[in-house]
Amino acid sequence: MTRQYLQRAEKITRRINELAQVSEDKTCVTRTFGTDAFISGTKKVLSWMNLAGLETRVDNIGNVRGILRSKKAGAKTLVIASHIDTVVNAGKFDGPLGVIMGLDAIENIIENEIELPYHIELIAFSDEEGVRFHTTYLGSRVLAGSFPDSLLQMKDAAGITLKQVIEDMGHKPEKLASDVLPAEEWLGYFEVHIEQGPVLYEKKIPVAIVQTIAGQQRAEVVFKGEAGHAGTVPMDMRSDALCCASEFIIEMEKFAKANKANVVATVGKLNITGAASNVIPGKVTCSIDLRCTNEQILTNATQSIKRICSEVCSRRKIPFEWRPIQGMSPVICDQKMNFMLKRAVVEAGCQVVELVSGAGHDAVPISKVAPVSMLFVRCYKGISHNPLENVELDDIATAAMVCDNFLQQLSIH
Amino acid sequence: MTRQYLQRAEKITRRINELAQVSEDKTCVTRTFGTDAFISGTKKVLSWMNLAGLETRVDNIGNVRGILRSKKAGAKTLVIASHIDTVVNAGKFDGPLGVIMGLDAIENIIENEIELPYHIELIAFSDEEGVRFHTTYLGSRVLAGSFPDSLLQMKDAAGITLKQVIEDMGHKPEKLASDVLPAEEWLGYFEVHIEQGPVLYEKKIPVAIVQTIAGQQRAEVVFKGEAGHAGTVPMDMRSDALCCASEFIIEMEKFAKANKANVVATVGKLNITGAASNVIPGKVTCSIDLRCTNEQILTNATQSIKRICSEVCSRRKIPFEWRPIQGMSPVICDQKMNFMLKRAVVEAGCQVVELVSGAGHDAVPISKVAPVSMLFVRCYKGISHNPLENVELDDIATAAMVCDNFLQQLSIH
Repeated sequence: MTRQYLQRAEKITRRINELAQVSEDKTCVTRTFGTDAFISGTKKVLSWMNLAGLETRVDNIGNVRGILRSKKAGAKTLVIASHIDTVVNAGKFDGPLGVIMGLDAIENIIENEIELPYHIELIAFSDEEGVRFHTTYLGSRVLAGSFPDSLLQMKDAAGITLKQVIEDMGHKPEKLASDVLPAEEWLGYFEVHIEQGPVLYEKKIPVAIVQTIAGQQRAEVVFKGEAGHAGTVPMDMRSDALCCASEFIIEMEKFAKANKANVVATVGKLNITGAASNVIPGKVTCSIDLRCTNEQILTNATQSIKRICSEVCSRRKIPFEWRPIQGMSPVICDQKMNFMLKRAVVEAGCQVVELVSGAGHDAVPISKVAPVSMLFVRCYKGISHNPLENVELDDIATAAMVCDNFLQQLSIH
Repeated sequence: MTRQYLQRAEKITRRINELAQVSEDKTCVTRTFGTDAFISGTKKVLSWMNLAGLETRVDNIGNVRGILRSKKAGAKTLVIASHIDTVVNAGKFDGPLGVIMGLDAIENIIENEIELPYHIELIAFSDEEGVRFHTTYLGSRVLAGSFPDSLLQMKDAAGITLKQVIEDMGHKPEKLASDVLPAEEWLGYFEVHIEQGPVLYEKKIPVAIVQTIAGQQRAEVVFKGEAGHAGTVPMDMRSDALCCASEFIIEMEKFAKANKANVVATVGKLNITGAASNVIPGKVTCSIDLRCTNEQILTNATQSIKRICSEVCSRRKIPFEWRPIQGMSPVICDQKMNFMLKRAVVEAGCQVVELVSGAGHDAVPISKVAPVSMLFVRCYKGISHNPLENVELDDIATAAMVCDNFLQQLSIH
């Protein structure tokens, strides 16, 4: 790694640390959409973009945007972006890494007076995590022109509507349509993001190219057994909803492990209604989260898991209710952009690894209007959404080199 | 069933319904220790005892006590008792049935001028459920002389000490020792209680004799997996604490079902730390409740289940912590009293069924100082600790007849 890239990595890390200081809570990093800390964060990013000499603005959903114009007539726009909102008690890198690395790449172009045949628009999306309004991609949906007006009436935990929050930030909810980047103006979308999984860490490789963003099926299942006294109902006369849920969880895990298409299946929430140590659980509610990169396999897996649930419940004579919650189709990253990204990775002296993103990203809504590509950077043990989230300086330097190479590749092709 | 017993059953039911009206909450039956509703309840029961002509008092732990003296020199005391505190959102019968049926039996003795060779002390215990201070048998432990002074410093959810609650009720915590019934004065202890299990309901039999009250082992087990993103961590790289807990729950259920000594094993509470639908559970805490009538088998079963837990966790490479919480030895009801109770049941024209009580009762602390016996009455579907708790009039009439016969048997022997 050259000294120049390490110095850039140090600057990137400094800025990531500086942005992490801006938080709703002094003891951890929390910057949810529209809060004072969030607004301070956008101002900081805006000031960095201004300092770099970009043509800046904050749009009506709170995205911070900075354009570096190409001199070429009819140039299209490459959007480099990630988000600066966070989950509660977050890490420093999920989101900010992509924004600040984009800024670094642009500063390098300006400093070296590189002429590009495309405009670059750097965007810090205002809401990717969806913590405040329980719906993700607010910022990128506005950019992609897929933001439904109905969302403005959503309320946060305090009963404040999204419309109100936008107005309180000094923006105009009725002008959101003016912030769309029309489909014909896009060259493509590029995002750098931490992997949020352990594959690169285990393989000891700094970066990876995202091939696909997994589709997701969510559901809630309710097991309707019968509550009873833990001391008085014999084992063979019980309808224990927790035992039923447990058997289902194990069978679902077995199914996903045996699946060759990398289906992942998770029960993240489990609630026993009226739980007490001396009461046989009567009603158990579980969340189900299924993901896969292949839409057909995801659909089939959802059906299989529902069938598994039905079989377990029928063996135990416990009725169940299956409530589908949200579906999202897989997104395949653009082959042409990924071809150039591969070259960029090879030029940086790295092994080419292609990964699937199990987590959703802003590239999901953008993919409806533009070709998308993403570079994953190794993070410590794959830990994310956690203060332990970390990226090594060397890996940031490598990623910076890949970015330079990639922007160069895009100039040639 | 004679008309006389049905009339008595109607009166008993009327009183049970009247007492059920006295509640902390208008929409359901809740009468926890020391509350205004509880005090109103004790006054109502006291007034009924006074009306019957008993020698009454409320002791320092809030037990309502009424003595019917025998004329026989050196007579011992038969305590007939149950409790009038309830769980939250309780049924009407758990506790009050035993107190009010005891009163009914005494009224019958007085009315028919039956001379008994023993005193009867009817007691409505003030706290059996242990809802407010998370420790059971406050009332009966005072009576048995096994109430440790240290309990006075316990605090309820609002931070009020038990000592304070006793004083607020107008009693003297320093005088609790004066409320003990000394071991040498006991003839025995008798309690009528709903079964709280489905056996009598399934067998279509009105009453049963309690042979043993099961011993109990409680523990808390913590499964220490690793949280992760539900979309990004492949199935074979997960340390899912919930999958581990689920496998343990299923293995524990299998063990208990296969056990020939009627061990019952229950996980009633399960908590996922930081649960979210898109997060792989990192830490899961489960309550464990094991019961058995045989102390050695209970001890062995506890060890076996701990070993099962250890095996599941070691297969999954997930550390666990096993915290024992509370142990209680099984109580065997008095053979001689049960022999007389059997005769009483036969005389009432019923089939003799002997049951194990999976639930604990005030007979547990009493058994340290006196022979104990219990009569179980069938309840609807075995449902208890629930507004659906119900006992049919016919079964109350049968139980009343058994009580009369039993008191008669005790006179003869």
